[in-house]
Amino acid sequence: MSKRHSIGIDLGGTNIKFGVVSHDGEVLHKGMLSAQVNLGREAILSNLRLAVKRSLAFAGRKRIRVNCIGVGSPGSVNPRTGKIEGSCPNLPQMLGVNLKRRLSDHFDYPIHVDNDANLMALAEFKFGAAKGFKDVLCLTLGTGIGGGIILGGELFHGSSFAGAEFGHMTINHRGRKCNCGGIGCLEMYASAPAMVRDAKRLLRNDRKSLIHKLTRGDSSRLTTEVIFQAEKKGDATASRVVNRACEYLGAGIASAVNLVNPQVVVIGGGVSQGGLGFIRRIENEVKKRAFPSATKKLKVVKAKLGNDAGFIGAATLCSSAVR
Amino acid sequence: MSKRHSIGIDLGGTNIKFGVVSHDGEVLHKGMLSAQVNLGREAILSNLRLAVKRSLAFAGRKRIRVNCIGVGSPGSVNPRTGKIEGSCPNLPQMLGVNLKRRLSDHFDYPIHVDNDANLMALAEFKFGAAKGFKDVLCLTLGTGIGGGIILGGELFHGSSFAGAEFGHMTINHRGRKCNCGGIGCLEMYASAPAMVRDAKRLLRNDRKSLIHKLTRGDSSRLTTEVIFQAEKKGDATASRVVNRACEYLGAGIASAVNLVNPQVVVIGGGVSQGGLGFIRRIENEVKKRAFPSATKKLKVVKAKLGNDAGFIGAATLCSSAVR
Repeated sequence: MSKRHSIGIDLGGTNIKFGVVSHDGEVLHKGMLSAQVNLGREAILSNLRLAVKRSLAFAGRKRIRVNCIGVGSPGSVNPRTGKIEGSCPNLPQMLGVNLKRRLSDHFDYPIHVDNDANLMALAEFKFGAAKGFKDVLCLTLGTGIGGGIILGGELFHGSSFAGAEFGHMTINHRGRKCNCGGIGCLEMYASAPAMVRDAKRLLRNDRKSLIHKLTRGDSSRLTTEVIFQAEKKGDATASRVVNRACEYLGAGIASAVNLVNPQVVVIGGGVSQGGLGFIRRIENEVKKRAFPSATKKLKVVKAKLGNDAGFIGAATLCSSAVR
Repeated sequence: MSKRHSIGIDLGGTNIKFGVVSHDGEVLHKGMLSAQVNLGREAILSNLRLAVKRSLAFAGRKRIRVNCIGVGSPGSVNPRTGKIEGSCPNLPQMLGVNLKRRLSDHFDYPIHVDNDANLMALAEFKFGAAKGFKDVLCLTLGTGIGGGIILGGELFHGSSFAGAEFGHMTINHRGRKCNCGGIGCLEMYASAPAMVRDAKRLLRNDRKSLIHKLTRGDSSRLTTEVIFQAEKKGDATASRVVNRACEYLGAGIASAVNLVNPQVVVIGGGVSQGGLGFIRRIENEVKKRAFPSATKKLKVVKAKLGNDAGFIGAATLCSSAVR
């Protein structure tokens, strides 16, 4: 085969996703294994190597030539050195690790490393919902709110690789205290746990909500999926929670749009699967709030690559110009 | 003289400032004339030409060779075409005007046009408080809150030339309605008029405030200068107004820092002259709120070039790479 291929590895707080990806974005093979984060740094590194080995084994069997290995990790990653330099709350044991060096010791391939949310943005830009655009904001809504920024067709990193923290834009200067130390950060209002907290609060005054039935009265079963499901069936409390989330997200994204003036905002992550026009409702809120000159041509769209975006983006690093 | 020189023109809502500037930032001549905005578009254009002619006359007398003319204007300016494309609330009569073409008809020099706040940022980056940095946020605090962004040593424009609207970052998602149509925009809280409004509100419950004395009981004399003056003399209400402004600015700038992760934030405009450690207090608020990985090396500094920044930046266009 003459096509060029790379291995992409996506290190998460729980699992490692990996795949063999062609340079035009086709996924030829993918897999997942536990990161075993509770066993510490060396176990995580050993599992990362295992993910590479499984990918290489697949490539060997299929006689696919692998050109390079790309890795995405939580935290502030220096893409020039491959080191995890800062702010890694989901995987604190990896702080300070030079992933590039630790993998180069075992594999004789060029190795590139970047932040996981940046790589999801890169994947959506190259092969997903933002294909064809050059100025892109990409947000992921899940346990946290993260994201990546593409400017002029290149992944944007910021001066200390700490940019694109959409979850930590202020939407209420005297609001909820955030885990990051900040005040009124978007993540405290519109992440999955924040939506669940909001629902629990409202449910205290709504004993008849369908949500009680869907969770069989067990609030530990309350997830954003349940909230969206209840809204679909006409539940007023569920609808209120989702409307509020759209308002919060609209306010935060409008700020970002007024500052960075992108062509497209891509919204991914588990919560983005909400349905019922969730993305359209966020878009309406953004367009209501942001500058007309910044929203006139703006598109707000759902991410396309789902859970594969992380390793596809990592594989894509091999063929991308990274500043 | 072998040094290269340009003419810089700064079109404002009231006046036109202009100057002859060497390519290393030395101001050899400067002047100001009324834009006569109430006389309409053609009068403004005629005054812009007059500013150019006066600059050329100076250069002629001193035998200075002028290479090029740069012009800054309010609104969303397309630097490639030289047209004012959008959002020009301070000079609505200029919306849609192609400044580059309208001046090229009269002067046989290369002409470059950009947004006025962008050019202030460019001037501070080339010759002022942000010299030596490459990722810069520059805010101007005055009647409005505007600014410019330098990324990787280049002026950043956004996909429709509508970026860097610091005044329209949300700091309170259910807060004050803004003139731009948005809700809770920073400008509604920390611009000069917003500070004056806050002071007036607080003064109703403080008949003994020094501010009453300084304005001789005439609230139309209440300006941010008076507020800063009263604070300097220990007035509690004045201090409360300034502290709040620092809190608002800290929240907005922290959002921008978490998103763009610059090396330095430059604060200019009339209000930045506040004194009493105004800039330090804003810096403290930013560092309290933003991500440690984004603030560790961050500097927050006062602008250096004052009212000249606009025309210096315009002249600088001639020697800058603009995307």
